[in-house]
Amino acid sequence: MDNRQIVIQSLPEGRLAEDNFAMRTEAAPVPSDGEVLCRTLALTVGAGQRAGLQGSASYAGAPKAGVVMGGSGVARVEASNADGIAVGDLVTCQTGWQDYSAHAAKAVQAVEPAGDPAHHLGVYGTNGLTAYFGLFELGAPQAGQTVVVSAAAGSVGHLVGQMAKISGCRTVGVTGSDEKCQRLTDELGFDAAVNHRSPDFRHQFRDACADGIGIYFDNTGGDILGAALRRMQRGGRIVCCGVVSQYDTSNPAPGPRGVPGLLINNRVRMEGFLVFDYMARYGEARAKMRGWVESGELKPMQDEFHGLEEAPRAFVDLLAGGNVGTRIIRVAK
Amino acid sequence: MDNRQIVIQSLPEGRLAEDNFAMRTEAAPVPSDGEVLCRTLALTVGAGQRAGLQGSASYAGAPKAGVVMGGSGVARVEASNADGIAVGDLVTCQTGWQDYSAHAAKAVQAVEPAGDPAHHLGVYGTNGLTAYFGLFELGAPQAGQTVVVSAAAGSVGHLVGQMAKISGCRTVGVTGSDEKCQRLTDELGFDAAVNHRSPDFRHQFRDACADGIGIYFDNTGGDILGAALRRMQRGGRIVCCGVVSQYDTSNPAPGPRGVPGLLINNRVRMEGFLVFDYMARYGEARAKMRGWVESGELKPMQDEFHGLEEAPRAFVDLLAGGNVGTRIIRVAK
Repeated sequence: MDNRQIVIQSLPEGRLAEDNFAMRTEAAPVPSDGEVLCRTLALTVGAGQRAGLQGSASYAGAPKAGVVMGGSGVARVEASNADGIAVGDLVTCQTGWQDYSAHAAKAVQAVEPAGDPAHHLGVYGTNGLTAYFGLFELGAPQAGQTVVVSAAAGSVGHLVGQMAKISGCRTVGVTGSDEKCQRLTDELGFDAAVNHRSPDFRHQFRDACADGIGIYFDNTGGDILGAALRRMQRGGRIVCCGVVSQYDTSNPAPGPRGVPGLLINNRVRMEGFLVFDYMARYGEARAKMRGWVESGELKPMQDEFHGLEEAPRAFVDLLAGGNVGTRIIRVAK
Repeated sequence: MDNRQIVIQSLPEGRLAEDNFAMRTEAAPVPSDGEVLCRTLALTVGAGQRAGLQGSASYAGAPKAGVVMGGSGVARVEASNADGIAVGDLVTCQTGWQDYSAHAAKAVQAVEPAGDPAHHLGVYGTNGLTAYFGLFELGAPQAGQTVVVSAAAGSVGHLVGQMAKISGCRTVGVTGSDEKCQRLTDELGFDAAVNHRSPDFRHQFRDACADGIGIYFDNTGGDILGAALRRMQRGGRIVCCGVVSQYDTSNPAPGPRGVPGLLINNRVRMEGFLVFDYMARYGEARAKMRGWVESGELKPMQDEFHGLEEAPRAFVDLLAGGNVGTRIIRVAK
């Protein structure tokens, strides 16, 4: 059985390009005792994966040229040598960018078979969980606060803004195009959205946060973090979730000038987190989000490409800010 | 009655110099109804005051040329038009750099007359309270943790390190000379001390924090903050207290590269504070520190100059790292 794989052909210098990847075909793996064979149905890509391609700078480890590109997917079990997992089960796992992968039973998570399988990569997957725990555990929103989120049209950001809104907050999104700004306010109920590529960004941002920022959910770092630091209210909180601004480069920018001076003046707490630390509470978070999705308060958005061969293009485009919602690559039905 | 005053002659460009100040003599103020006249006995200077001379960048406000240099002092009441305050009482207040000052009753704090009055500017004053609340409220030390403090020989730092030690922590000080390092380990019980001006600082620092840092109490920002960020343990805390590295310049350095990336990877919390927010609990903190001082566990150090005219030199020297402990300028007996 053929297994198409997309491998890292070369580590990027500067910006990532499609030709950093190449496709090859190998034989599908044969599951050993205790393993299952998974057929990838859909993949997601996230900006955080770019950090992995820089080597040791990231929690994601250091991939090398010649290996299959890593990544999360939702898959159907095609063969099982593991107790408790049956052929036909739907699971999420680290499929990588390939048609087939074999995993130990404990490395796959069974998921609800009803509905669009890709939702398990978005709102009920790492993206939704990241938004949920970052906002509620570190941000601790209170009704009436102004919550700002960067990369607001992204897989995590578009959910953060909506969950802040559900919490009674005023929600301001920062994103990279006027079109995305419009979708945030028109379709997702953000109170305001600002395009950080606008020449007038500083003034627009100031006006959008005229009373200061209670919580800043940071997916970007860099200049947007710098702008938010200058507008934090006394006792405000910055949730450090991602550093998109620094992933797609070999030469990350220095940190913002306001650190630590502005943290002191305004008694601001800035805290980083990784969603995996909350694994024991995923069920609780998913149940909460499922309720909001079913009531229509939370609208998960997906932004789709079709075909495994499209994964490199989908990833490069994501890093350029092309997506609205969770980027999904459909691989098979 | 003559009142010698040291005024800001010019705002510094680049490093502060003694000739940014000048002395003049005016008539001592006459206290109005509800006011007291204070005779300055001793002043303290702290690096944070340098930030005030940069204008709006600091919580300390923006002094202008021609005004008396501000600052905290301990004073004796020489005349009182205020109920409840008697001639001869010992108080702390914002004396400024001058022999006499008049204050509304609510702007002076009566202090314990016994012992050295200058202690009310050090361990029982803002310095000690800053060390106490920063370490215990934001840092929350647990026995066995490694606590690193920068500007460790400074007015706040030398107390932080000792209080961390009292809490059962391993204590590492970062300071600016080998002599100061030695005093920290020999006289104050620090487990290790590293000179950040040493060409071998990085290696020495790494060796001193071989198991990583649980709490970093940051008085400096800049490169030392950058070095600490790279050594933080998972879930570690950075207490942002001061930014000495950026005070004595007109062109503050950018923030450390590790923000926010390393905060995320290591789930680090970084939080700024100002001691004034804990005013309601000063009594509790002073009682605790008084117990430690009396038992000999906490050794407050003072570093003294004599004569009001010495205040500019004492301040410039402080910014160059000349002090060990709280810098005191004795003005009168």
